[in-house]
Amino acid sequence: MNSETPVVYLDNAATTFPKPEAVYRDMDSVYRSSGGNAGRGANPLARRAAALVAETRELAQTWLSAPEVTFSPSATIALNTIIFGANLRTGDVVYVSPFEHNSVARPLEHLRKTLGIVVRQLSYDKQTMVCNLDAIRAHFRIEPPSMICVSHVSNVFGILSPVEELALLARQASPSVIVLIDGAQSAGLVPLELANIDALVFSGHKSLYGPYGIAGVAFGRDWRPAPFIYGGTGTRSESLDMPSNGSDRYEAGSQNISAVAGLRAALIWLKETGRCSIYDHVSSLTAQLTTTLAGLGGVFIYPSNSRVEHSSVVSFNINGVSPQIVETALGARSIAVRAGLHCAPWAHDFASTLTQGGTVRTSLSFFNTEQDVLALAEAIDELLQHA
Amino acid sequence: MNSETPVVYLDNAATTFPKPEAVYRDMDSVYRSSGGNAGRGANPLARRAAALVAETRELAQTWLSAPEVTFSPSATIALNTIIFGANLRTGDVVYVSPFEHNSVARPLEHLRKTLGIVVRQLSYDKQTMVCNLDAIRAHFRIEPPSMICVSHVSNVFGILSPVEELALLARQASPSVIVLIDGAQSAGLVPLELANIDALVFSGHKSLYGPYGIAGVAFGRDWRPAPFIYGGTGTRSESLDMPSNGSDRYEAGSQNISAVAGLRAALIWLKETGRCSIYDHVSSLTAQLTTTLAGLGGVFIYPSNSRVEHSSVVSFNINGVSPQIVETALGARSIAVRAGLHCAPWAHDFASTLTQGGTVRTSLSFFNTEQDVLALAEAIDELLQHA
Repeated sequence: MNSETPVVYLDNAATTFPKPEAVYRDMDSVYRSSGGNAGRGANPLARRAAALVAETRELAQTWLSAPEVTFSPSATIALNTIIFGANLRTGDVVYVSPFEHNSVARPLEHLRKTLGIVVRQLSYDKQTMVCNLDAIRAHFRIEPPSMICVSHVSNVFGILSPVEELALLARQASPSVIVLIDGAQSAGLVPLELANIDALVFSGHKSLYGPYGIAGVAFGRDWRPAPFIYGGTGTRSESLDMPSNGSDRYEAGSQNISAVAGLRAALIWLKETGRCSIYDHVSSLTAQLTTTLAGLGGVFIYPSNSRVEHSSVVSFNINGVSPQIVETALGARSIAVRAGLHCAPWAHDFASTLTQGGTVRTSLSFFNTEQDVLALAEAIDELLQHA
Repeated sequence: MNSETPVVYLDNAATTFPKPEAVYRDMDSVYRSSGGNAGRGANPLARRAAALVAETRELAQTWLSAPEVTFSPSATIALNTIIFGANLRTGDVVYVSPFEHNSVARPLEHLRKTLGIVVRQLSYDKQTMVCNLDAIRAHFRIEPPSMICVSHVSNVFGILSPVEELALLARQASPSVIVLIDGAQSAGLVPLELANIDALVFSGHKSLYGPYGIAGVAFGRDWRPAPFIYGGTGTRSESLDMPSNGSDRYEAGSQNISAVAGLRAALIWLKETGRCSIYDHVSSLTAQLTTTLAGLGGVFIYPSNSRVEHSSVVSFNINGVSPQIVETALGARSIAVRAGLHCAPWAHDFASTLTQGGTVRTSLSFFNTEQDVLALAEAIDELLQHA
């Protein structure tokens, strides 16, 4: 297809697109004017870059209500930092939700194979995809958690997990538990109290409407992981050890100034636009999407319980048609959705969607409109006529 | 100082600045038009992003004469990938040059402490900073290397190490040796034959004139490290293991499309401008810089042997004045240099510049001019009058 054809973009769980204009503008203008190396020396450009990083960190801390934020180039690296930096030992039990992304599942599987940690799935109902807090409390008592890893919003099914309650249950069962929340799809959009959460991982380029190249960890408590990436920090350079505290400990290498500028612009845009305004718009569109899709015979939305609230992400399948064929057919109509496993095989194992090649996933952002939802519904209706 | 004051930027070893216009332009325009998620689904925006990544990878492979290139968010992460993925064992001997950056020194120190590897320094002459190949050959025979890590161009002193010869010596002493070359200051600018080199790490934002957020490894041979970062690859998502081969194995997480677009533009610019044209301009300016500085009484250039060719980076000190004071004084005159250890403490230990707080480092790019060198010389001359 011609690269100029306008696309109805419904793959915002992969990356929100487009970005607020200020994000594009600042990425360009700040990089042109202040593209020095932050924290490396005291020259004017390095100072400007360092001030930008400090300001963005403060904005992120405020927006996420976190006492400390460190930056990473991606949420994947932030999750690796927490999981590999947790100093888990043989036999330690790590609980996960059934919806964890491969950026959590693959590091844990590596530790299971090489170190002998035990990975257990938290109890969730297969029909409603709601977690069973009583069963979980009982499991925690029998086999106390060393760590729990839960995604706040599933990147496949869009369902919200009650992470504050899960964190509290885990903390009650094991005061030294490490609570890791994967907030790639939710951070900054769905409010979260970090009191019992050690690490909330956020992605700049998803729910924060910023660019690729910047993500990080919001630390809610005193626990800090061991360093994962070793290198130059521009501080205490005479030492062959990483700094023993502070964000430098996790930020070896040059800061990505263009990405930081984009994240700063996004955080300012979020504040000006308002969390509620964004959340309400996306929620209302998501409700419209699920209602419209449910109204089309032959479309199966996950989970089947229509009372479940989807947070911007809705997965479905069309009877007898592979998700990949649906994706391609929609793509030919300039509608961008995503088919497959969405890097979360556990979720499809749980929902029994593995053998059919996963699901068709639609995911919305503040920049989607009712027209986008209608365009999708019309296109699917057409597909159903020909299926 | 006012952010509008033009800066004479002589800190290109930290990051080249400015970038070629096409780099800024494409980072912005490509991100606006094709900001999907590469390799995640088959929707039009994801396909465009994937095509961009593939094209950039091909350009990088051609420019670096490498059979395979994988991308990382930073050279630090690329170096960590090689060092931690080398599966070193207790007692393994790793040789380093005296000039390695903390992105090599700190991972090795961590492995020394936790795993008991042995880190040895290759024999270099303290006066000339030239390596002693005969002594090194003899050391390799007595204590064969499991790995050697050498920066092609020192980020502190700008001296070139004969990495092809060192790689050959290491290979002759130990055919299974892993040869890691840190090319952050040289990759794509100083020609390099990868025949005996396993991994050449490059930084997008330094000698390649691209943006922050993209770097990588050029593999010269068949050896590949174990994965370092575990996560979603958009491929073989049903497996909890990282893919067993291909660049996906090392590229978990979303590709940074804006950075990839910038690197592509930089690689096209490099090709159009010509390696020789860039190299000759920078070399000639560097020679002018060393000659001019050497002509000022009271300036000590490292190494003292004036016949040593500096590759774009020149470190010096002014008798009796700390490097930090020189940096600040030059900064007040809108000249950006860098004072300190430059994240390479071994280099200062070697050159006996640790106690005096390191060196003042100047580093040039294709966009510097004779006027920049003259402005620096004048400013230093003024400082000397008042010192």
